[in-house]
Amino acid sequence: MFNLISLKNGIDNVKGFNSGGVSAGFKKDGEKDVGFIKSDTLCDISAVFTTNKFQAAPIKHFKKYKEDFQTNFILVNSKNANAITGQRGIDDIDFIFENINIPDIINPIMSSTGVIGYPLQREKIIDAVNRFDLNSKDSDSCARAIMTTDSFKKEICLKVELDDGSFFHIAAICKGAGMINPAMATMLCFIVTDANIPKTDMSELLKNSIDDSFNAISVDGDTSTNDTVFLIANKTQNSYDKTAFREALNFITKNLSLLILKDGEGSNKVVAFEVDGALSRDEAKRAASALSNSLLVKTAIFGKDPNWGRIASTIGASNIACDEEKLEIYYDDILVYSKEHPILDEQTEQKASKVMKKESYKITCKLNMGVFSYTAYGCDLSYEYVKINADYRT
Amino acid sequence: MFNLISLKNGIDNVKGFNSGGVSAGFKKDGEKDVGFIKSDTLCDISAVFTTNKFQAAPIKHFKKYKEDFQTNFILVNSKNANAITGQRGIDDIDFIFENINIPDIINPIMSSTGVIGYPLQREKIIDAVNRFDLNSKDSDSCARAIMTTDSFKKEICLKVELDDGSFFHIAAICKGAGMINPAMATMLCFIVTDANIPKTDMSELLKNSIDDSFNAISVDGDTSTNDTVFLIANKTQNSYDKTAFREALNFITKNLSLLILKDGEGSNKVVAFEVDGALSRDEAKRAASALSNSLLVKTAIFGKDPNWGRIASTIGASNIACDEEKLEIYYDDILVYSKEHPILDEQTEQKASKVMKKESYKITCKLNMGVFSYTAYGCDLSYEYVKINADYRT
Repeated sequence: MFNLISLKNGIDNVKGFNSGGVSAGFKKDGEKDVGFIKSDTLCDISAVFTTNKFQAAPIKHFKKYKEDFQTNFILVNSKNANAITGQRGIDDIDFIFENINIPDIINPIMSSTGVIGYPLQREKIIDAVNRFDLNSKDSDSCARAIMTTDSFKKEICLKVELDDGSFFHIAAICKGAGMINPAMATMLCFIVTDANIPKTDMSELLKNSIDDSFNAISVDGDTSTNDTVFLIANKTQNSYDKTAFREALNFITKNLSLLILKDGEGSNKVVAFEVDGALSRDEAKRAASALSNSLLVKTAIFGKDPNWGRIASTIGASNIACDEEKLEIYYDDILVYSKEHPILDEQTEQKASKVMKKESYKITCKLNMGVFSYTAYGCDLSYEYVKINADYRT
Repeated sequence: MFNLISLKNGIDNVKGFNSGGVSAGFKKDGEKDVGFIKSDTLCDISAVFTTNKFQAAPIKHFKKYKEDFQTNFILVNSKNANAITGQRGIDDIDFIFENINIPDIINPIMSSTGVIGYPLQREKIIDAVNRFDLNSKDSDSCARAIMTTDSFKKEICLKVELDDGSFFHIAAICKGAGMINPAMATMLCFIVTDANIPKTDMSELLKNSIDDSFNAISVDGDTSTNDTVFLIANKTQNSYDKTAFREALNFITKNLSLLILKDGEGSNKVVAFEVDGALSRDEAKRAASALSNSLLVKTAIFGKDPNWGRIASTIGASNIACDEEKLEIYYDDILVYSKEHPILDEQTEQKASKVMKKESYKITCKLNMGVFSYTAYGCDLSYEYVKINADYRT
């Protein structure tokens, strides 16, 4: 057994890590846009990157290091993704790391988010880095420095207490907002831990954790060039248990995913789409993801319209085995469609509409074909989404 | 050689066909919602239906007839899709055809569009049918009877003159608006001809024509339960030429597709997405369709923002062979990205913005990997789209 205790102040709790952020002038009103995470000692690092074919320069720069390299410094910036910037994008990162006044940094990593296709303003970034307080414990500023269209910062920390009296921490900051889909779009997440976790466990647990969290959410179905999740371990605490670590990591990634969704551009609601009784997990996932990505479903959610026909139609279009005679659709626990109840009566419609007024709820589709299930998470599509994305660069 | 001459009044021109429409009271203000197409003689018919697994009752009813059956009557209605209505939906169609006062109808067909999951109001439809003027030539009323969120009716007619002095007509009415994507969603199209076309040519030419027209357009990427394209030939004219028929049919389906897109819910613009230089036609099609479906691309089009990064990112996410060093992106003939011109200068940005102010324009992505190309068509995503679909049933 083990205890998971939620702590404030994100990665400030994790032994041996410092962090912070300053303004380089990229954002308006002196808001922070360049930040760092620094470890007193060398860290193992596991990464999961975007599946986009045009991987951004920071990802290419990361991949220049040898396998199983260790690092003690991560530099982050917003407002410029340093993507589709060619060799210049990679050279700019090298130039920055060669020209900053930070002693003893080893294999430094950069991570960027923002607009595609413009070169980094490297002098401004160097100037910002030279203003870092490297001894600060300021997770808040670092979390703010990676925000783009996010309306609130996202950080989380768990203290994990084991039965032997030992304990360790896992904490994370991340940014999300638009362009979030099952392939983890425009999403940066930095997870740091002081647990004494073996490198082999890091990769395995991180990959599995992402499949049911960041890869299960959809804001708009787009996949960016920069998506990155890092798990960084400095092993400062002499404490580790694989099961406990898995639980804590899954808790963190799942909850950050839901925060991203809640903060989806212009989004007001988080809806879980559970598809049960599919012939395979892959089919369940395909149908659930189709629901979370459908514009017509999203707009019906925004309009609080229990139009289950759009749910059924989307399931039918997702190219999975299904049968309208076996299908059941629920809004939370309100049955809105089955072969026996094919027509939405007024009373049921009122109950379903009431469910749809909640900030978050679940739409369940029981296929009754097989035994596999998957839950994807989506949000509504609002006027605000269109506005934010029509004007993104300005 | 042959001449294609555009005529007004849609299917009124086609010899041996009558059509019309009345109000059954489903729409407000006495707008037409039930219509018909009737032929003096029996017709061959070819059909292409939705790929949605939950095919609507009218499609199941059609499939009960023997292969190569002939018909002389098509009944259409809007406001109710008769989809996911089980056996009752099929029985309702039979009931309607058994209880209307029209002599000599053989193998009648029904086609419906509207909300999913409600039984047809069959008595109201029967009453409406009994008010049809079966001798009317009123393509306009029939085209209006199938409109849902369409803001204008869609009809088209070509007279095809052959070198031997003979001629025939092809005409069509269709409805589209939302839920249009490369799998032909919420789209009904009735193409009628008096050409003496062999049945084998009908199926072949219809299928090929749809692949580059209705299947190449996207309003919101959803696929409905009811999509149908019929080609109906009464062979009243002793005239036919396969090449001429193909050209005329392709002209009609392509132009109706563009009308549907122009009328996409809340849409203001039609954009052609041409992907050139792909390794296969399939890859070109996948990338072009991804562009026409991307929410971020659609909102950038709405915002008239030449943010080519979103174009590149969407290409990169579409899982095709591509290379940022070989990629070129154009807005009409304005080059906005290539390896040699990676940064959007102010002058080019102004030129590209000017292109984006046009009602229709083309975005070309030259992959420079292979020789295959495909053009998909999309529209913008506006506040209006969200509004229409949030309130669809009310």
